[in-house]
Amino acid sequence: MSDNEISRRRLLGTVGAAGATGLALGAVGGAAGHAVTAADPATALATVGSTGESFHGEHQSGITSPMQSHGHLVAFDLVAGAGRREAAALMRRWSATAARLMAGEPADDDTGVALDAGPSSLTITFGFGRTFFDRTGLAAQRPVQLDPLPAFSGDRLDPRRSEGDLWVQIGANDALVAFHALRAVQKAAGAAARTRWQMTGFNRSPGVTAQPMTSRNLMGQIDGTRNPKPSDHDFDRRVFVPAAGSGSGSPGQPAWMAGGSYAVVRRIRMLLDDWEKLNLRDQELVIGRRKSDGAPLTGGGETTELDLDRTGPDGSLVVPANAHARISAPEQNAGAAMLRRPFSYHDGMAADGTPDAGLLFVCWQADPLRGFVPVQRKLDRGDALSTFIRHEASGLFAVPGGAEKGEYVGERLLEP
Amino acid sequence: MSDNEISRRRLLGTVGAAGATGLALGAVGGAAGHAVTAADPATALATVGSTGESFHGEHQSGITSPMQSHGHLVAFDLVAGAGRREAAALMRRWSATAARLMAGEPADDDTGVALDAGPSSLTITFGFGRTFFDRTGLAAQRPVQLDPLPAFSGDRLDPRRSEGDLWVQIGANDALVAFHALRAVQKAAGAAARTRWQMTGFNRSPGVTAQPMTSRNLMGQIDGTRNPKPSDHDFDRRVFVPAAGSGSGSPGQPAWMAGGSYAVVRRIRMLLDDWEKLNLRDQELVIGRRKSDGAPLTGGGETTELDLDRTGPDGSLVVPANAHARISAPEQNAGAAMLRRPFSYHDGMAADGTPDAGLLFVCWQADPLRGFVPVQRKLDRGDALSTFIRHEASGLFAVPGGAEKGEYVGERLLEP
Repeated sequence: MSDNEISRRRLLGTVGAAGATGLALGAVGGAAGHAVTAADPATALATVGSTGESFHGEHQSGITSPMQSHGHLVAFDLVAGAGRREAAALMRRWSATAARLMAGEPADDDTGVALDAGPSSLTITFGFGRTFFDRTGLAAQRPVQLDPLPAFSGDRLDPRRSEGDLWVQIGANDALVAFHALRAVQKAAGAAARTRWQMTGFNRSPGVTAQPMTSRNLMGQIDGTRNPKPSDHDFDRRVFVPAAGSGSGSPGQPAWMAGGSYAVVRRIRMLLDDWEKLNLRDQELVIGRRKSDGAPLTGGGETTELDLDRTGPDGSLVVPANAHARISAPEQNAGAAMLRRPFSYHDGMAADGTPDAGLLFVCWQADPLRGFVPVQRKLDRGDALSTFIRHEASGLFAVPGGAEKGEYVGERLLEP
Repeated sequence: MSDNEISRRRLLGTVGAAGATGLALGAVGGAAGHAVTAADPATALATVGSTGESFHGEHQSGITSPMQSHGHLVAFDLVAGAGRREAAALMRRWSATAARLMAGEPADDDTGVALDAGPSSLTITFGFGRTFFDRTGLAAQRPVQLDPLPAFSGDRLDPRRSEGDLWVQIGANDALVAFHALRAVQKAAGAAARTRWQMTGFNRSPGVTAQPMTSRNLMGQIDGTRNPKPSDHDFDRRVFVPAAGSGSGSPGQPAWMAGGSYAVVRRIRMLLDDWEKLNLRDQELVIGRRKSDGAPLTGGGETTELDLDRTGPDGSLVVPANAHARISAPEQNAGAAMLRRPFSYHDGMAADGTPDAGLLFVCWQADPLRGFVPVQRKLDRGDALSTFIRHEASGLFAVPGGAEKGEYVGERLLEP
């Protein structure tokens, strides 16, 4: 019996009682489709493992997929001498690996770490950095959207942990499944590319709260309240590059990016020792929202709009002029919006005894100049939160559309 | 409304639909008791968060509690000038913090990071290192069981990440709940103690497999198969220090350790790049078990006993003489056994590009000289696995019995 068969058998054993294996693993259609096998409480216990995301589709997975509890971000550089041919072979290997792992099947020469786990909502997402295009002789295909981000005054960027020729985002609802995928991706890089940097993050576990998409960051704030929703009429236009001739207009976008998106990655250190010295009221004034439930200081619930003009009895703004929620509000940024899909990180104690912890900020947009950049420019100038955070690394990556069956991610760029 | 009330309300909102809040949070009896609120699939989603462990009891939590998906191990040293009085006050604060957090309630001056999560099976376990007793003037109360472990030839121990006056083990089924507890414990240390080292680990998430206690390590092996089971007739005698006069006899154990246990902590780096170069068959010969299901190479299933005398057609032992499973088998070690309850760890890439990953090995026993030490001595001499691992840090801690209501952990040692 091959490893492949063993894994399949064990997986079937896990989800078989729900009688819905086909649903969980095979029939997940649509770009962001995911299937949950929920049955009686006994089998419901194993649904975290048996839930799978689809590798093939118009968009890559890991963008609109539900946030996962574990993530790895990893950047690679092509080795000297590797060009377009090697990059194409690499993307072909990586796509095959991702498709198998996301279906709960083992990789070639599998390490066994994810055996009997099921796909566990694994997603593997691939992107190209600015330097990729020169190294592969494809500079003419480089989108202007990959032009370097402007420098921000709060940046303390470590170039060794920034950028990279290639970027892979791995997410899963199990730490072993995520680690297994990371090793498989690194092994499949073979002699073509070397790991440049790698970061690990986390979000709330499935089953901890009734709302799986709501997570708190390590400052204790509910994060992602104002995210665009897939049901918004302009969601696709904001997040994904439209297909040529779709009439949506996307000047300067190369055809190979149709269905793709741009990921801005920022390692944002939180100065938690300083932050935690503030009392609750002062923390809420920095953010402009209540910590307990994320509601604006002007009242209502988490999803209530901020009343930016409301003043208190003393005439001062209830949501202060420098409150993070005010400055980052889409209505304060000509509608600029991005889909934030971060992981928290905690890499133990720094040399000075403070926690090396914060946010692996990942945001998605059809154009960084209409998403991350204008919002960050405003935050950089006047955000009360900036005293308590430090951007330590940065990356900007072009994430092509999803692969159709028989295709690999990036094929439309890499095949002559 | 206080933070406390807010948290309670949100928690009730989460598990209220199951109509079993009292069961989940209040009525968890017994030293290792835990309650799962399982109802229809919709509410079953939130049972990971609403499950709680009991702080009070004969034994501390986190020893026989089900393994959790996230863990922090952290050691503290008392500051210069802090003695028994300060240590007693510290243990009183820590115990109060642990009791509140394990019930899903906020800590004093809470950071909010675990708001609306529920207890998520949080356990917080406290231990004393060898150096604690001199610093507190309690050398006469120090158990001989805390005498330094022998040096092993495979040790490459970093003293800065080893030992410590005090040790805290935190486990939870949510990363944010675990991080929140870590910060609360560090904050409650106040001016009395400083963090000496801190490590973070993980296991499989709840709901990924049908058997939550089975986890694989980062070499892909099923881990913990031969662990003593609470149903074993001699489990308590092996794991816990008996009460004085119980007739079990425990020479040299001080009275204050009744109901306690000794934790041996080893940071075991796995040399995964080397390990993964072995093919599956060679890996299985190193371990003596099949990777797919953990069954002995002599056949059967995961829990089948190894047939240590069986030879193959060529006359050689089926389970090789240096196989890890043979050398560590209790029947090969005069019955020496310990309760292993580890976390995997992965701290990114080491400077040489290899993964800084492996096992935060934690084992529990009534006497290290009848648990960890004899087994590790044998492994150190002839374990085929030793080529692929490196012990990088070590700690040995006396973990007193659990606190009764109104008592704090360690009170029987620290109060005159």
